[in-house]
Amino acid sequence: MKVKVNRRAHFNAAHRLYNPKWDEEKNFQIFGKCSNPHFHGHNYELIVSVLGEVDPITGYVIDMKWLKDIIQEKIEERFDHKNLNLELEEFKDKNPTAENIVIVIWKILRKEIPKEMDLSVTLFETPRNFVEFSG
Amino acid sequence: MKVKVNRRAHFNAAHRLYNPKWDEEKNFQIFGKCSNPHFHGHNYELIVSVLGEVDPITGYVIDMKWLKDIIQEKIEERFDHKNLNLELEEFKDKNPTAENIVIVIWKILRKEIPKEMDLSVTLFETPRNFVEFSG
Amino acid sequence: MKVKVNRRAHFNAAHRLYNPKWDEEKNFQIFGKCSNPHFHGHNYELIVSVLGEVDPITGYVIDMKWLKDIIQEKIEERFDHKNLNLELEEFKDKNPTAENIVIVIWKILRKEIPKEMDLSVTLFETPRNFVEFSG
Amino acid sequence: MKVKVNRRAHFNAAHRLYNPKWDEEKNFQIFGKCSNPHFHGHNYELIVSVLGEVDPITGYVIDMKWLKDIIQEKIEERFDHKNLNLELEEFKDKNPTAENIVIVIWKILRKEIPKEMDLSVTLFETPRNFVEFSG
Amino acid sequence: MKVKVNRRAHFNAAHRLYNPKWDEEKNFQIFGKCSNPHFHGHNYELIVSVLGEVDPITGYVIDMKWLKDIIQEKIEERFDHKNLNLELEEFKDKNPTAENIVIVIWKILRKEIPKEMDLSVTLFETPRNFVEFSG
Amino acid sequence: MKVKVNRRAHFNAAHRLYNPKWDEEKNFQIFGKCSNPHFHGHNYELIVSVLGEVDPITGYVIDMKWLKDIIQEKIEERFDHKNLNLELEEFKDKNPTAENIVIVIWKILRKEIPKEMDLSVTLFETPRNFVEFSG
Repeated sequence: MKVKVNRRAHFNAAHRLYNPKWDEEKNFQIFGKCSNPHFHGHNYELIVSVLGEVDPITGYVIDMKWLKDIIQEKIEERFDHKNLNLELEEFKDKNPTAENIVIVIWKILRKEIPKEMDLSVTLFETPRNFVEFSG
Repeated sequence: MKVKVNRRAHFNAAHRLYNPKWDEEKNFQIFGKCSNPHFHGHNYELIVSVLGEVDPITGYVIDMKWLKDIIQEKIEERFDHKNLNLELEEFKDKNPTAENIVIVIWKILRKEIPKEMDLSVTLFETPRNFVEFSG
Repeated sequence: MKVKVNRRAHFNAAHRLYNPKWDEEKNFQIFGKCSNPHFHGHNYELIVSVLGEVDPITGYVIDMKWLKDIIQEKIEERFDHKNLNLELEEFKDKNPTAENIVIVIWKILRKEIPKEMDLSVTLFETPRNFVEFSG
Repeated sequence: MKVKVNRRAHFNAAHRLYNPKWDEEKNFQIFGKCSNPHFHGHNYELIVSVLGEVDPITGYVIDMKWLKDIIQEKIEERFDHKNLNLELEEFKDKNPTAENIVIVIWKILRKEIPKEMDLSVTLFETPRNFVEFSG
Repeated sequence: MKVKVNRRAHFNAAHRLYNPKWDEEKNFQIFGKCSNPHFHGHNYELIVSVLGEVDPITGYVIDMKWLKDIIQEKIEERFDHKNLNLELEEFKDKNPTAENIVIVIWKILRKEIPKEMDLSVTLFETPRNFVEFSG
Repeated sequence: MKVKVNRRAHFNAAHRLYNPKWDEEKNFQIFGKCSNPHFHGHNYELIVSVLGEVDPITGYVIDMKWLKDIIQEKIEERFDHKNLNLELEEFKDKNPTAENIVIVIWKILRKEIPKEMDLSVTLFETPRNFVEFSG
């Protein structure tokens, strides 16, 4: 009796797409305006999905209030109103594409979610572009 | 050539989270304000998803009009504008968490959908909290 | 240079449509299933709109963080996860239709918003039914 | 390290549901008002989903700008503001149900997407009816 | 104590932009692909807004169930799954632009809505293009 | 016969809230995390609304294709993927709050829209915060 429970969250951040091994010209050639050295930004919307057995006593897979608080503590407080390139250690040497951001978020949350449950994370960079990672 | 077809529906209902084996204090400790004895409520949004072969004659997996009518008859008419704890027999002894509601809905619809097709149901309790069950 | 600023909020509540001067039969005749004595409920979505001059020093009409906090303190904490008929004094003798709820919310917030600013409130009972009140 | 990347697109088109082997009466009996010989139409919303390895140099599964352009060139330019029954060769002998349209779109895009990546396509005929095909 | 109440509805229809006084070439020059002689179509979304006094006995401006039924009878049943150019007498000599459609709908509903109430109609041709008419 | 026509557009940008007459400490005190010197960002969604007479020949208030192109040329190309504080001359000495941004956009578009038509602009900084300016 496995149910997948999903919780939405969001954060607003600045970033630029940038490979530090390339010069600005090469970065612009590959990433276009997304590589603007002055940065741009997004309202990132996040869906955290946890698949697990329903506890017959509570009727919960996981306490959604607890899940909400973990997302707030581990993700929103670190990512919200930040410059991903300059302020998050995970992106010191890694390009903050949506793909890399979703993997970083998944790895942070994987440590918090009980091991017997499956985790996947969906990240909307815009309402038109979004990515999903399931480990 | 299997295609998944999806149909949205919705119902508005009252509920409270409540384990009848616990006293009110314990219920409040576990479920917080969701256990308010006077109830609260939601606009539940439902997505019913059916995976099956496309019929080469009609081009349908399933007649969406028929699917809409079955959801209305079996789910909306029973759940809409109801108090889930007091008025639905399925929740007489079962806590109406989103997880338990989606399993109940899936079981009701599973009897209606042709056996050779897969069924999954997604239930939004709010735009921020939703659950999925696939049997 | 007047700008209208808008902030979304939400609360989940139970209610029933009910005129205490009528018997149950008359209530059912007028309000249909919305008058179910066991209650039903909604995810109410709220938009609070404030029209005022832009402060040339801050660039704000009003501090949206302050507005968010006022809505949370005065509306969400009182209305969220409540039974509007049983637990809110404003609806002891008043039918909690969307129209009456939006007027109650407007009156509560009108006392908080600076007098020189115009206030309007939009309340979604469902994504398909919503009401607006501007005083 | 496989990530699924998703891109939304849209086109507006007219169609009717129609099996040319049946007469009008039989078509109406099976497809109802969807078989109106004068056509009706939809704002089709499309989500193209590509699952693949993240390139460690770019941080991309696939260049979303390239994906956007391919969808525009191969799908939007052919489908947008068209009558699917009369103007698209794929539906000369095939009923343009949502199921058949999503398969046609998947087949067109499958030729463009690198072979080592998985492709799935979701097509919203309305916000309430949508279909998914993964090959 | 005037409150504006709003009800959403929707219909799917085919149309083309076309001025019968011009030849096809001129129509194409002015209306572009929207003038495709084979038609295209939309999921039209409608918001009907009625401003009036709240009845102190019911707490209603207007019975939303009645409003829903009137919209269904007078608009949805006539417009849904139709070709606006060929099947609606109002567009026999009038170009079915969003502007003209919203005026036609407003005129139909104006006859139904009590005279002391204000009526406005919003019509979404797509999620990105919409029009409003208030008489 | 005045109809309001509305067109959505969007751009992604970085900004920080900052009054150059104040030191960093005072800026942080007033604007909180929105004043992060490393910037943050948003997916800004824009609705441009034009109220005017319907042309009896075209059935248009204004050619929406022309409106879309003007928004793209004058707003999206200048604002999209930019740092509003560093790269837009309008915000060299002006705090890029949502209020100030919507006024700047309105002033740019006011020069393009025919004088006999009314213009208003709505700017969503997030789905929860938005502002409107009508001149």
